[in-house]
Amino acid sequence: MKFIAEIDIMPLKALLDPQGKAVSQSMEKVGFNEISNVRIGKHITLEIESDSREKAMERINDACNKILTNPIIEGYSYTLKEV
Amino acid sequence: MKFIAEIDIMPLKALLDPQGKAVSQSMEKVGFNEISNVRIGKHITLEIESDSREKAMERINDACNKILTNPIIEGYSYTLKEV
Repeated sequence: MKFIAEIDIMPLKALLDPQGKAVSQSMEKVGFNEISNVRIGKHITLEIESDSREKAMERINDACNKILTNPIIEGYSYTLKEV
Repeated sequence: MKFIAEIDIMPLKALLDPQGKAVSQSMEKVGFNEISNVRIGKHITLEIESDSREKAMERINDACNKILTNPIIEGYSYTLKEV
């Protein structure tokens, strides 16, 4: 079975997000005063071959923890769709 | 009304995604052979004050086109949730 995973990786809520803060401030300067609390992370899509949905999820958790994220400063969530 | 927008910004399908390609290759090297076609973009969350959902969507499209994305190389999609 083949799945497509859509993974969101965001800076943990408890941490400052300097990139997001900078964009929040720019928003104000260029007239988007109604926009606030910008936070910026990564969006990753990938394809994974697996025998089952459970196995695929296990492998994606592995990949997220080992390669794709830094668990000290980032959290992740994902959706998995069979194709 | 206050909304939270979750925006995904991805390199256009027609373009190479060097960062994604590099991660795809790393996956193989560290034993995730079943993972392929990694593509990497940005995930942005923000809060927006607006009189209506329609107005909020218009402003978010504006912000995406003018500040958050480079429309020549990136596409975006988003969901909007009232809070």
